[in-house]
Amino acid sequence: MNYFSSKFKLGILGGGQLGKMLLYNTRKFDIYTCVLEASNDAPCKIASDEFHLGDLMDYDAVYNFGKQVDVLTIEIENVNVDALEALEKEGVKVYPASKTLRAIQNKAKQKLFYIDKDLPTAPFSRFAYTSEIEDAINHGGLSLPFVWKCAQFGYDGTGVKVVKSVEDLKGLPNVECIAENLVPFKNELAVIVARSPSGETKTYPVVEMEFHPEANQVEYVICPARIDDDIAEKAKEIALRTSKAFNHVGLLAVEMFQTQDDEILINEVAPRPHNSGHQTIEASYTSQFEQHIRAILDLPLGRTDSKVGGVMVNLVGAEGFTGNVIYENIEAIMKMDGVTPHIYGKKQTRPFRKMGHVTIVNEDLNEARKVAEQVKNTIKVISE
Amino acid sequence: MNYFSSKFKLGILGGGQLGKMLLYNTRKFDIYTCVLEASNDAPCKIASDEFHLGDLMDYDAVYNFGKQVDVLTIEIENVNVDALEALEKEGVKVYPASKTLRAIQNKAKQKLFYIDKDLPTAPFSRFAYTSEIEDAINHGGLSLPFVWKCAQFGYDGTGVKVVKSVEDLKGLPNVECIAENLVPFKNELAVIVARSPSGETKTYPVVEMEFHPEANQVEYVICPARIDDDIAEKAKEIALRTSKAFNHVGLLAVEMFQTQDDEILINEVAPRPHNSGHQTIEASYTSQFEQHIRAILDLPLGRTDSKVGGVMVNLVGAEGFTGNVIYENIEAIMKMDGVTPHIYGKKQTRPFRKMGHVTIVNEDLNEARKVAEQVKNTIKVISE
Repeated sequence: MNYFSSKFKLGILGGGQLGKMLLYNTRKFDIYTCVLEASNDAPCKIASDEFHLGDLMDYDAVYNFGKQVDVLTIEIENVNVDALEALEKEGVKVYPASKTLRAIQNKAKQKLFYIDKDLPTAPFSRFAYTSEIEDAINHGGLSLPFVWKCAQFGYDGTGVKVVKSVEDLKGLPNVECIAENLVPFKNELAVIVARSPSGETKTYPVVEMEFHPEANQVEYVICPARIDDDIAEKAKEIALRTSKAFNHVGLLAVEMFQTQDDEILINEVAPRPHNSGHQTIEASYTSQFEQHIRAILDLPLGRTDSKVGGVMVNLVGAEGFTGNVIYENIEAIMKMDGVTPHIYGKKQTRPFRKMGHVTIVNEDLNEARKVAEQVKNTIKVISE
Repeated sequence: MNYFSSKFKLGILGGGQLGKMLLYNTRKFDIYTCVLEASNDAPCKIASDEFHLGDLMDYDAVYNFGKQVDVLTIEIENVNVDALEALEKEGVKVYPASKTLRAIQNKAKQKLFYIDKDLPTAPFSRFAYTSEIEDAINHGGLSLPFVWKCAQFGYDGTGVKVVKSVEDLKGLPNVECIAENLVPFKNELAVIVARSPSGETKTYPVVEMEFHPEANQVEYVICPARIDDDIAEKAKEIALRTSKAFNHVGLLAVEMFQTQDDEILINEVAPRPHNSGHQTIEASYTSQFEQHIRAILDLPLGRTDSKVGGVMVNLVGAEGFTGNVIYENIEAIMKMDGVTPHIYGKKQTRPFRKMGHVTIVNEDLNEARKVAEQVKNTIKVISE
């Protein structure tokens, strides 16, 4: 297949910021690209060759869109998987595969997959309904504290709650869920693995994540993680095994805990470019977005090592502001050393909404980390 | 002025590959962008917020387009300068200024500017018509060999000829021209200077250029140039003085000769992102395209030093091929270390047409140069 010709069509499900950053690279390679997205205000509205309006959870919308392309990928997991399965049967190359998405979309199934494949993860219990949890506690089948996670459609910032007492269960939706052991950890780590249909595999350096204590969103991503080499090797090895276990094609971001005993436990995975890899645009030889394109098109994978140290800061809407967005002090952060803001182009801000990110690179990672904190303390995403 | 809002509009005259690479950065900063371009097949057709069809040399087209934007820039020099001058008078910020473009568009005027500003350049004679040259030779006013340059609208690959005998004058267009002393040089160098309206100025490292012997197009750009520090300093200092002499805003690419006596002579300038700066996308802390946006919007300039060594190879149409383009062996070069192809998206190739470029980066510049040669010997831009 000659990808560098207008006869080839790449389809992307989802038109958000990840899609937007993928499009920089399809443009760079001049690969013809079609985007399916429900909103006309989406960041991918421009820069794709074809923009199709449609609901990603709707069977017909996804199927009819997919029939027009040669390779289909996603920038968000919540898509109609039945349509993907039908498309696979009809010869469309779907990466990630419908089977992988099914296992990942449901957190209970995802956890069972790890256990089945002998991949390390925190112990957990599965419940058909949240209401069953109190019984389990009362009968000694579950002990407090634990992490409650909605099984379906959970994502960063919602669908997860630390439960310290029975009281904390109140107000949670009565849905399929898991109760996961609360792991006392030293670090949250992530490794992005790239894998192509022909089986070529590369891992990015292990990154370290610092979360916002309230919003449960990543605040800083630090590349490389400031951990011992043997821990980094262990994390990479587990991430690689996970990608292979899924027989995955494309990027797989594997989020992990480094426990107090230096055990590595898989937290969750994302089968696509990921927030923990944004710094690769400036810091790595090959950005995660270019790598995803290379992987799904079975092109040779690019170098995954870093040119310089990188730190990523998420730009999320400040609390107390909703409406037309303003990036206060953006010029001040652009004056700082090695700082690149990425503005996603969402017109409306609201508290904790991901509006952009800032990458800080430096030969000296500690210097980058210092500047990142200045960036965080300077720029504010507010409304008019 | 809040650039990061949809009330602000940036206009770009020209929709070619330089515009396309500028758009990666307006997209990254979510800056609203309008492009004026004569062809619907241009690389900028997508990814701008507004694409306007129009002739860049047409007064009304440029004027009416420019009236709709707040800041106007170019990606090609050959635009209607009268329209720019009118727009400046009406308050549109035009970078580069009409005055600068007038001085640059005509090579005779450009050379006179250098002499006027005491900037070093090779001696030359100016002729209203090529037909006057033979007389000048016969009367001893001009000695062979020399470089004939068309004064107007010359650009890479045309409008320039080395004249070794009177015979060589045959077939040249009978237009305004200059005859420039043929400078025996060791190296062709270039420095890109960024300058903002408030006067902040930064220079990129000196690069070394190797030209294709026949096509007179750059074949390799090597960053940094493998020259002595004192020569590099001299080149940077002259480039900086040139930018200031023009009172320039935006990028100014200054092409220079390093003579056998280590003199630095200005060859010519381009008031925009330039072929000699493409490697900055992968090799530098701030790409030339981001820097141009920062400069013309009076944002703080980014770091201009390099993360790693970079070599750029132009992808030009192979001789003997005209028609629908094919990038033969592109997958083979993507397998090489640190290689990123940039495909501009022109559908038709012809001999020596610029169809893309390839950047090769490496910690070790010599290694990058080696890989660049492999790239050059492997990929071929041919037709179906």
